[in-house]
Amino acid sequence: MDEIDIEHVAERSLSDPVLIEGLPGVGHIGKLVAEHLVEEFDSELVRRVYAAEFPPQVTVDDAGVTDLTAAAFHAIETPDDAADLLVLTGDHQASTNAGHYTLTSAFLDVADSFDVDHAYALGGVPTGELVEEYTVLGAVTDADLKPPLEAADVEFRSDEPAGGIVGVSGLLLGLGERRGLDATCLMGETSGYLVDPKSAKAVLDVLQEVLGFEVDVGSLEDRAEEMEEVVGKIQEMQSQQQQQVLPDDELRYIG
Amino acid sequence: MDEIDIEHVAERSLSDPVLIEGLPGVGHIGKLVAEHLVEEFDSELVRRVYAAEFPPQVTVDDAGVTDLTAAAFHAIETPDDAADLLVLTGDHQASTNAGHYTLTSAFLDVADSFDVDHAYALGGVPTGELVEEYTVLGAVTDADLKPPLEAADVEFRSDEPAGGIVGVSGLLLGLGERRGLDATCLMGETSGYLVDPKSAKAVLDVLQEVLGFEVDVGSLEDRAEEMEEVVGKIQEMQSQQQQQVLPDDELRYIG
Amino acid sequence: MDEIDIEHVAERSLSDPVLIEGLPGVGHIGKLVAEHLVEEFDSELVRRVYAAEFPPQVTVDDAGVTDLTAAAFHAIETPDDAADLLVLTGDHQASTNAGHYTLTSAFLDVADSFDVDHAYALGGVPTGELVEEYTVLGAVTDADLKPPLEAADVEFRSDEPAGGIVGVSGLLLGLGERRGLDATCLMGETSGYLVDPKSAKAVLDVLQEVLGFEVDVGSLEDRAEEMEEVVGKIQEMQSQQQQQVLPDDELRYIG
Amino acid sequence: MDEIDIEHVAERSLSDPVLIEGLPGVGHIGKLVAEHLVEEFDSELVRRVYAAEFPPQVTVDDAGVTDLTAAAFHAIETPDDAADLLVLTGDHQASTNAGHYTLTSAFLDVADSFDVDHAYALGGVPTGELVEEYTVLGAVTDADLKPPLEAADVEFRSDEPAGGIVGVSGLLLGLGERRGLDATCLMGETSGYLVDPKSAKAVLDVLQEVLGFEVDVGSLEDRAEEMEEVVGKIQEMQSQQQQQVLPDDELRYIG
Repeated sequence: MDEIDIEHVAERSLSDPVLIEGLPGVGHIGKLVAEHLVEEFDSELVRRVYAAEFPPQVTVDDAGVTDLTAAAFHAIETPDDAADLLVLTGDHQASTNAGHYTLTSAFLDVADSFDVDHAYALGGVPTGELVEEYTVLGAVTDADLKPPLEAADVEFRSDEPAGGIVGVSGLLLGLGERRGLDATCLMGETSGYLVDPKSAKAVLDVLQEVLGFEVDVGSLEDRAEEMEEVVGKIQEMQSQQQQQVLPDDELRYIG
Repeated sequence: MDEIDIEHVAERSLSDPVLIEGLPGVGHIGKLVAEHLVEEFDSELVRRVYAAEFPPQVTVDDAGVTDLTAAAFHAIETPDDAADLLVLTGDHQASTNAGHYTLTSAFLDVADSFDVDHAYALGGVPTGELVEEYTVLGAVTDADLKPPLEAADVEFRSDEPAGGIVGVSGLLLGLGERRGLDATCLMGETSGYLVDPKSAKAVLDVLQEVLGFEVDVGSLEDRAEEMEEVVGKIQEMQSQQQQQVLPDDELRYIG
Repeated sequence: MDEIDIEHVAERSLSDPVLIEGLPGVGHIGKLVAEHLVEEFDSELVRRVYAAEFPPQVTVDDAGVTDLTAAAFHAIETPDDAADLLVLTGDHQASTNAGHYTLTSAFLDVADSFDVDHAYALGGVPTGELVEEYTVLGAVTDADLKPPLEAADVEFRSDEPAGGIVGVSGLLLGLGERRGLDATCLMGETSGYLVDPKSAKAVLDVLQEVLGFEVDVGSLEDRAEEMEEVVGKIQEMQSQQQQQVLPDDELRYIG
Repeated sequence: MDEIDIEHVAERSLSDPVLIEGLPGVGHIGKLVAEHLVEEFDSELVRRVYAAEFPPQVTVDDAGVTDLTAAAFHAIETPDDAADLLVLTGDHQASTNAGHYTLTSAFLDVADSFDVDHAYALGGVPTGELVEEYTVLGAVTDADLKPPLEAADVEFRSDEPAGGIVGVSGLLLGLGERRGLDATCLMGETSGYLVDPKSAKAVLDVLQEVLGFEVDVGSLEDRAEEMEEVVGKIQEMQSQQQQQVLPDDELRYIG
């Protein structure tokens, strides 16, 4: 196999499609949103991208049949007048610096072949503490892209995220701009400790408003509720542990 | 040397051969089976594959003569009406992600040159505890391949192994399928802590039944017995240690 | 993207320019000097060098607009009769051995395209203790280059720095010489623990004397003063901590 | 720079030369022998090999002049009727598996260009304890090469060294054989903890006998004596420490 191998699974023409990227990352927010779109809409798998940068691995499905590790592009013709979507999902990023560049270039080649002229890279920003209000941060390749995002309550903060945007999401903007592609990164604030469907819903809300499509968010809300129950139980356990520990501490330091 | 260097040691034509891969891995099960076939049958070394991904190393034989690290293909013309075998053995996998892809592609090139149309990748599945019943798990590139395997008591479990199949074995299925090759992975259940000839014998039994050849398994059974003695001694030592430790623990916690 | 991608941001012809390299390193001395020149002079960004060896990353500016990680070349036409300057700055070195060679070769290609015939690689030498007198050490590709540097108080010490000169600075000399380029490394002595604007000023003083330009060093002196206040506070805190610790130690060990 | 860059420093024709390789390794034995030959004989630097696999580094000589990291080939016309020598020395091996293959291939290219038909790779075998008798172990690409070595007291032990021969030395045999070159590895037994000039002298003695040249070994014997003094002092310090520790131990365990 070459360094990159793009499989044409199906041909489909889309009108003015935008690329939505949701690979694994902080809080799995991009991945949750991208997979939600693929599941809720009438989507069709159009391309698989195999890469020597991915782990040397096949997954085994429920019938015992294997699939070579790959990133996948699904085409979605949205109802209404909204832009069509080309959605990029997968289980892996690259394993080296150079590999991220090779892989993102391949993804941009696929986007080019569908005449994509705007890419949305989705991700999360870790805050280090439990998030109360689910703000969505933005970054763009061109300041002209900001007004419609600001109208959808996306925040732009000076020099944030401080460490820049890394991985495929960052390079979709960086290498995309080098090719003349408009690109936007939408980052949901999240604690950084857990998969965060609630932050994913906040990012999805922005996408719906900006791109003008509507999608059922019920299953994402269900997952958010399940996650909140998990968080609640963890908090309960922690506070019990602290109570058990306290008397001991008192004995040691005060008694 | 190029990234890959394939040495033609001998030419031999095989009728409808299947590829049997047994490189090092969990419990060395694949390696045990593949080397057993090479030893028991009238086999001939036909190809060596050198790779810059292998350790920069020569081994020294019993006469002080060196051999460059390589993977080896042996040709076996089975008696009876069974399919001929092309058996891949070696001491190393690749050392990087990309290297696994390069190496497996080279192995598939060799298989292609012998008109192989079905590959069997052999390995082990770690269970984390001593195995009583030696089940063989299967995974295939195509669901149509399952019936004869199921008839030989190979089990197909939904989404197992959970972490997928990694290394050359995984890619023989993944990259093999991309080339139109049928491929099957047979994985013997094993504790994962020790070389496991008994699990290897279970995998070999499946191969014999599915491919229709017969081979003496005496030496494999001998090794299995030796291994059981080793395991027995380890268990004995552990139980003695626990008895020695117990009184101490009692003194510390109860006394 | 290829391994290296050189963006022509502007064309500008320079007369007998010298290359000044200031990438991150010990005490950030080279970086401080190079960025100071870019800020104080009327400089123009002429080239950006993108590299797959750099982190897969975009930075976000104060308006929320992204920039792909790159090294930058600025052109400076110095007033007076001094040589024009081509200044190389950036936030990263390469991430692998081979990458340093690829990256430095690309930098030398850019220098060649501007007819640079002398390169100055700027850096720091860690002394392990606070520096009182800010000596500048030198190393050259050709002994004939030493007299004017020695006249500017640059010290040449036998076999120093002991570990050689590593990274892009070292290769600018090593690979530069292979191309027939004269190259000089100027290394300010510094503790190695902190960003050191005072050591940077010492290096800048040498550059001014050797190349015959004059530049306002006010902002560098301001940063040096700020840094000295920081160091003063750290020293004060350390001496307080030692005093607080002492009585305790006495109680524990003597009382 | 390309992956490999071979500099032709001088042209020199040698009659039936053998390659002697002495890069850094266990006990620095190969390096000591190779550098001794370069210093004692009337040698001439003929080739430098630069490689992107080497550290990105220049060394600084006693005049403050830099040299790019490289491996060096020196040509030696031996007096007497002995074979001429092409001696490979340097400060580094490669930094990756694949790099060792690339580098060794380049070294073999240089050897080919001098019509070398026999290579001697020199190294050490760690024994883990102080060595009393300095045996030299051998390994060869062809059993026919053994008789003259055995006549010079080189020992060939079945399957030793157990871990094979790694690095450039190993590949000189492995890749050399692939090109039809005879190659011999001579390994001095050494503790593995220290630079070992005495073991180096044992290897040099074999070389002299096998190749038929004579060289002054005075400086190597001087270094061996210095090293023995160092070892003596270390042993003295260790025995003193043990005496100081003993009373304490007695108090703790027996008292």
